[in-house]
Amino acid sequence: MSTDLIDAQIAPTGQFDILSKYEINKLSHESRGSQYQTFRNCSLAVLNSGGYMDDGKELLETYSNFDISVVPTERSVKLQLKSAPVSAFVDGKIIGGIAEHLFAVLRDIIYVNSEITGSQLHDLTSSQGITDAVFHILRNAGTFDRVRAPRLVVCWGGHSISSEEYDYTKQVGYELALRYLDICTGCGPGAMKGPMKGATIGHAKQRDRHGQYLGVSEPGIIAAEAPNAIVNQLVIMPDIEKRLEAFVRTGHGIIVFPGGAGTAEEIIYLLGILLHEDNKDQPFPVIFTGPASAADYFVRIDEFIASTLGEEARSRYQIIIDNPEEVARQMAVGIREVKSHRKETGDAYYFNWKLKVAQEFQQPFMPSHENMLNLELHKNQKPYQLAANLRRAFSGIVSGNVKDEGIRLVEKNGPYELRGDPGIINSIDIMLESFVKQQRMKLPGKEYIPCYRVVSE
Amino acid sequence: MSTDLIDAQIAPTGQFDILSKYEINKLSHESRGSQYQTFRNCSLAVLNSGGYMDDGKELLETYSNFDISVVPTERSVKLQLKSAPVSAFVDGKIIGGIAEHLFAVLRDIIYVNSEITGSQLHDLTSSQGITDAVFHILRNAGTFDRVRAPRLVVCWGGHSISSEEYDYTKQVGYELALRYLDICTGCGPGAMKGPMKGATIGHAKQRDRHGQYLGVSEPGIIAAEAPNAIVNQLVIMPDIEKRLEAFVRTGHGIIVFPGGAGTAEEIIYLLGILLHEDNKDQPFPVIFTGPASAADYFVRIDEFIASTLGEEARSRYQIIIDNPEEVARQMAVGIREVKSHRKETGDAYYFNWKLKVAQEFQQPFMPSHENMLNLELHKNQKPYQLAANLRRAFSGIVSGNVKDEGIRLVEKNGPYELRGDPGIINSIDIMLESFVKQQRMKLPGKEYIPCYRVVSE
Amino acid sequence: MSTDLIDAQIAPTGQFDILSKYEINKLSHESRGSQYQTFRNCSLAVLNSGGYMDDGKELLETYSNFDISVVPTERSVKLQLKSAPVSAFVDGKIIGGIAEHLFAVLRDIIYVNSEITGSQLHDLTSSQGITDAVFHILRNAGTFDRVRAPRLVVCWGGHSISSEEYDYTKQVGYELALRYLDICTGCGPGAMKGPMKGATIGHAKQRDRHGQYLGVSEPGIIAAEAPNAIVNQLVIMPDIEKRLEAFVRTGHGIIVFPGGAGTAEEIIYLLGILLHEDNKDQPFPVIFTGPASAADYFVRIDEFIASTLGEEARSRYQIIIDNPEEVARQMAVGIREVKSHRKETGDAYYFNWKLKVAQEFQQPFMPSHENMLNLELHKNQKPYQLAANLRRAFSGIVSGNVKDEGIRLVEKNGPYELRGDPGIINSIDIMLESFVKQQRMKLPGKEYIPCYRVVSE
Amino acid sequence: MSTDLIDAQIAPTGQFDILSKYEINKLSHESRGSQYQTFRNCSLAVLNSGGYMDDGKELLETYSNFDISVVPTERSVKLQLKSAPVSAFVDGKIIGGIAEHLFAVLRDIIYVNSEITGSQLHDLTSSQGITDAVFHILRNAGTFDRVRAPRLVVCWGGHSISSEEYDYTKQVGYELALRYLDICTGCGPGAMKGPMKGATIGHAKQRDRHGQYLGVSEPGIIAAEAPNAIVNQLVIMPDIEKRLEAFVRTGHGIIVFPGGAGTAEEIIYLLGILLHEDNKDQPFPVIFTGPASAADYFVRIDEFIASTLGEEARSRYQIIIDNPEEVARQMAVGIREVKSHRKETGDAYYFNWKLKVAQEFQQPFMPSHENMLNLELHKNQKPYQLAANLRRAFSGIVSGNVKDEGIRLVEKNGPYELRGDPGIINSIDIMLESFVKQQRMKLPGKEYIPCYRVVSE
Repeated sequence: MSTDLIDAQIAPTGQFDILSKYEINKLSHESRGSQYQTFRNCSLAVLNSGGYMDDGKELLETYSNFDISVVPTERSVKLQLKSAPVSAFVDGKIIGGIAEHLFAVLRDIIYVNSEITGSQLHDLTSSQGITDAVFHILRNAGTFDRVRAPRLVVCWGGHSISSEEYDYTKQVGYELALRYLDICTGCGPGAMKGPMKGATIGHAKQRDRHGQYLGVSEPGIIAAEAPNAIVNQLVIMPDIEKRLEAFVRTGHGIIVFPGGAGTAEEIIYLLGILLHEDNKDQPFPVIFTGPASAADYFVRIDEFIASTLGEEARSRYQIIIDNPEEVARQMAVGIREVKSHRKETGDAYYFNWKLKVAQEFQQPFMPSHENMLNLELHKNQKPYQLAANLRRAFSGIVSGNVKDEGIRLVEKNGPYELRGDPGIINSIDIMLESFVKQQRMKLPGKEYIPCYRVVSE
Repeated sequence: MSTDLIDAQIAPTGQFDILSKYEINKLSHESRGSQYQTFRNCSLAVLNSGGYMDDGKELLETYSNFDISVVPTERSVKLQLKSAPVSAFVDGKIIGGIAEHLFAVLRDIIYVNSEITGSQLHDLTSSQGITDAVFHILRNAGTFDRVRAPRLVVCWGGHSISSEEYDYTKQVGYELALRYLDICTGCGPGAMKGPMKGATIGHAKQRDRHGQYLGVSEPGIIAAEAPNAIVNQLVIMPDIEKRLEAFVRTGHGIIVFPGGAGTAEEIIYLLGILLHEDNKDQPFPVIFTGPASAADYFVRIDEFIASTLGEEARSRYQIIIDNPEEVARQMAVGIREVKSHRKETGDAYYFNWKLKVAQEFQQPFMPSHENMLNLELHKNQKPYQLAANLRRAFSGIVSGNVKDEGIRLVEKNGPYELRGDPGIINSIDIMLESFVKQQRMKLPGKEYIPCYRVVSE
Repeated sequence: MSTDLIDAQIAPTGQFDILSKYEINKLSHESRGSQYQTFRNCSLAVLNSGGYMDDGKELLETYSNFDISVVPTERSVKLQLKSAPVSAFVDGKIIGGIAEHLFAVLRDIIYVNSEITGSQLHDLTSSQGITDAVFHILRNAGTFDRVRAPRLVVCWGGHSISSEEYDYTKQVGYELALRYLDICTGCGPGAMKGPMKGATIGHAKQRDRHGQYLGVSEPGIIAAEAPNAIVNQLVIMPDIEKRLEAFVRTGHGIIVFPGGAGTAEEIIYLLGILLHEDNKDQPFPVIFTGPASAADYFVRIDEFIASTLGEEARSRYQIIIDNPEEVARQMAVGIREVKSHRKETGDAYYFNWKLKVAQEFQQPFMPSHENMLNLELHKNQKPYQLAANLRRAFSGIVSGNVKDEGIRLVEKNGPYELRGDPGIINSIDIMLESFVKQQRMKLPGKEYIPCYRVVSE
Repeated sequence: MSTDLIDAQIAPTGQFDILSKYEINKLSHESRGSQYQTFRNCSLAVLNSGGYMDDGKELLETYSNFDISVVPTERSVKLQLKSAPVSAFVDGKIIGGIAEHLFAVLRDIIYVNSEITGSQLHDLTSSQGITDAVFHILRNAGTFDRVRAPRLVVCWGGHSISSEEYDYTKQVGYELALRYLDICTGCGPGAMKGPMKGATIGHAKQRDRHGQYLGVSEPGIIAAEAPNAIVNQLVIMPDIEKRLEAFVRTGHGIIVFPGGAGTAEEIIYLLGILLHEDNKDQPFPVIFTGPASAADYFVRIDEFIASTLGEEARSRYQIIIDNPEEVARQMAVGIREVKSHRKETGDAYYFNWKLKVAQEFQQPFMPSHENMLNLELHKNQKPYQLAANLRRAFSGIVSGNVKDEGIRLVEKNGPYELRGDPGIINSIDIMLESFVKQQRMKLPGKEYIPCYRVVSE
């Protein structure tokens, strides 16, 4: 596609329509402050998705001269773009959905930093304070609808999946939408985009004009996984943990498509939460699914869960292979239970306040070699605690595989060392090796060198 | 009417629909805090307007056991009422509009105190900070509509006027609404209610379903002047000065009906602002009007203005006697000019940012005997400054006439003494005497004893 | 009020927005055809209600030069008015609601005549055909709303009632609206206008923006009883019988205020229908009500019904004196039963298909002296048949009292002669005499000379 | 796909919500009458498009036991389906859009036949009467929106095009939608579906929630070319000529993609109309477009037009090859001119009344051998008349190629004979031969045997 550049001024939409002088000054001032780089890069990511077939892989370097600033007007602000990708524009006018996403970036990076996470309003060291912050960010983004029945299905899975798997995610999205269900993903291509594409057709067929396509991203990932054009509500959470909490508190059910170590991390996170005794009576439909060719992936995951977290964990999900209709049907059944439960308990439909998210799952994990070595990987603890530690292990491995900082740490100090109950350590090893064989660790074509090794006690 | 009592729980409307745990706790905590008495009394005032023919004179004492509290629920709050007037209910269910007003009280007394006036957000000592606060309170109350053309007419005038004058205000309201204009008043009976009643019929005839009936009150006055049932947007500003600023910044024109010293104070306030050189080019239609019997009232006002503020001040208003159609027609013409001007200057329709309100008009005046004696009542200053001082003088006289504190001060220290340019002092005297003769100072039937006297230099 | 005249062109609203060439030609042609006088006079009646305080008594003669014609435009039609009352206009532009009423006249006089009553579609000699026609006229007027719950209360009563009675009808309308009920009347002043005025305030207080104010008129009566400005759905039925059928099939309950012989006719009509054995199980709330001073009126009616139609008839209504709240409460209870019944039987909410309206009540009665003499006024028939004959008797008396043709017939041939069962004849006499004493027969101030006399068998 | 069968009852949508007893009886009676076969087959076609990837080629024979009937209910009708394709259902409930299409079939086959084409309302022998009928059918289908700006682009082209050409039509639809333009096609696959699919994405990106996807079909073609799921307004016109008139009167511009002889027929029809002197000043953007590989197709068409209809005809269209953006940009420019022109002339946006469609283009042509031989194919007539005759010639050839009746006629009597001006006859021959070479005459894989031959004068 074209890499032509364009300068433009974008008028505000939604909440930025009516501002006070105070707010106008604050916004234009803070947009040049500490968050500027994040603001700029996220904006560029959003602008970059304008092409018909966006693949999210075009590099930020192409637009090294890109600049964005907040310009005060008489009664609000405009966004001034310099050297922006022309693909976000039609005959010189910005595409409506992209303008919305741009102001979502302004809102979630600048405004949220100033009014929510950066204010003293929320005690971000307490569990309740973190949950409140997650709630405020989502409400501020307009994602809550008081009268909407539960119908939001979170879809997880890999970003670089085979075209067979991609088509399968579209089919599942289509069948979900035919049952009046909505889609939430993490933005980006692959399993994050397929379900939304399929759902667009399904909703259109049902004349369901108000389909929700919620994309929940975070600053570290949005550049690589730009929100696709179908996302009609974009929220950028401040970090991975709040993003995961947003998924489990707004979604009424979760579908997991095939992925790599990152997907495994998400699965363990989810099971860790559901295993908490406070959540025992919470209905929460979870389905692992993929085409026939992906059956083995889930066999390995299932074995791993059985041998580490046990049968109770296995009882919290179904595995359905190669049957999009059945996936959607079961999800619809599960969500009807969620609705009854919320009604009985008087809980909101739009936010699952009653779900216990233990602090272990809210606090960031820093994968240093020391932290990795000290992870408690044994069964002498509650299953949800073991899950929390396993999630950290996978988080470290993902980092050692693909994140700048992790890769550098491993280059410097050698592979991470993991220590613990041999059965557990062994299970990790087996599962990850199966991922390697299935070419799910990093992009196909390169040989995978493990970034960790097992240490005997 | 019945003074039966009722206990009830009221579910939230509007912005209180979707709250975080943090907000729920804060609200229920603060509603029992320093603002409790104000919150309770304003709530009672609102509940008290439920009768078909509310006259706002029923005493708060009747409901001495009344109590209101904010009760947390799973996802929001409810208002718990104890010993509330039954007239606000129909078959045990609260009337919809009254429920809205109750939550407006919660919003403007508790929430605004906590988030706007009580936060460090706004520097309430600076002119800009005060204006920003006025804006934030009004926006938070949902009174701004970005796409609504200028059409809001502020109506001022007395609360206890003759039935002939009351009918006249209805006629004017009716003619304004036939021209698709809306009404803003200070709530309460008399000239505050008549224009809204008339406008209801006018809007209905034009099939204009979205008529705005904005009531702007303040805590000190709402009990005596309960918002009538037609008010569909109620805002309670923190004090008199912010209430006056709300009028002049949201209204697109102002009509003044006959009143007493309070109305004179409002007129002087308005002219003082319009006389500021920064406002010279601001179109701002102002019309004084009443039935034939009220002609003399405006003659006196006009003479007073001529002899104190001069011809420039007189050029800022029209006097139209006994012609509701002409009043509405001229107001419509004036507002079309306001619209053109806002368009040209890019200013908002919903808030007149460009109007200069000098700090003299924003800061409260405390009418002690010393302050009254020291007022600069001479022509050796800019007209807008003289207007600011005259407003203070009238404010003191109103207080000495009707407000608890003022009456007590005068009882203790004797009448206020006013000093200054003899021509000005004399003009004040003549005008106020004419008010007395017209029985516009206090309620008819009692003899009026002036609360001030003139001191020679 | 002013009788200034104005010429104007009125653009179409609603269904006349989008017409074919064929329809444009047909409309402009037929508007000059056989229905022209009716079309013109009804239009004038509608235009005449533009004043603030319309009393419907201004004479058509004032506007003898008035003319209206249908002018074709490129894609629809306009109405060309000549010498129209200026009171329908504001600064030269017609008032929105009056424009709507004008096009309702065009629709119901010209279009309905051409497409419904004048087409071969409906067999207007059969009972089903008449009911279908009533349905088609009402549907074409847009009065049906598939999803609206039953809430329409028909209010009957006199047009020239005392101001005490008028205020009472307002109070009842207000209390109905507080319970989310709507109003249907026959248009015009008095008991036809009061409930709507009261309901406007009630709906406003409940923030019920979609109150229905349905006026059902007919060409012979609309000039004298112009639709008041609050009527937001105006339907002009072709004749009295279809108008009555429209009332009983669209209303979910009926309230009768005091009136004269015409109101008695309506009561007998209603009871006649409810007495039919097919309607035995139909819930249909009927309430007679008025202020304390009107108690005697209903005592007399009640006695008359007891002595002619018997106890079964009495069981179909309640009499509630001087208690607007209780009237509204009972009506709300009754309408909840109507709702349940419709739900059970699968019948529509917007049209009572299941109500049996016997042909005796659908066919017009021509009150010649011969027809009056031959009425079967005895108990040797089913009660509903006796009711049908009693209705005809009252219809004749109303005609002899106030209608041009009837008055002339009586002048020429002497009073009508009524013959029948002495008890029944006597009851009629007693009731009508009580009406005379209460000054409910004709306007107060003139002495009433009966237009009928009793003949012994 | 599954050929499972299902029985079901379908509740009405839209205009069938509120029916009279008269209409209920009439509908259920007529649905079993002369139109039954058409009604049944069209219904089956609509039900058959339920699969995710509908190709419209499944045969009606598969569902030989399918039956549909209109069942009266208390206040409307239901559709009773027997042995219907299960693909139209989700978990036993019909897909919303398919239910809409089913009731569109009932409306356009049964109701339209009874109320419009079958009534004496419209004189279907006169040009104006035919146009009025087209208007009434479209209005009855709810396709007119009085306030919608001109934005409807008609897309023509072949049904069995290459996947490269199909993708190109998607790209064009996408670019049109990015410019807020809507799509109208003839239903079915290929060039009829591609633009709608692309437009869905484009509208979604622009947050344009009210995209119009108008499908105009006719009974003879709907089975083969089932309306795709994206069509949100389906109209079935009674015959080909009215369908063509619907296209040119509702569309604000026309894009022609590659096709075969049928597409050529449409082009000649369109140019014939635009060449009429009454249409000289009508702006009407027409663009021929396709990917680079289709360039030759349009070269041949262009040459043919040049040599038969001349330069004036050529001035009425643009040819744009391989540039979807430019196509959309030019169409947007053209439609802005259409808007200005309609505004100036006061013509409707939703229906082009001013376009002259000569009777030659409204009356059906029966391609008997005699009629074909007698066609006036010479330049001794007005260009629009030559176009009318050329259209008939192509219509005959299409019939001889693919329609049952035509094929049988040719088998029996040998190829059609065409006679006329040698230059013209020769041009036809050259163009059709080029189509054969491009494999655009019938499906690829079979050798094409011409169904006509040229006769010298």
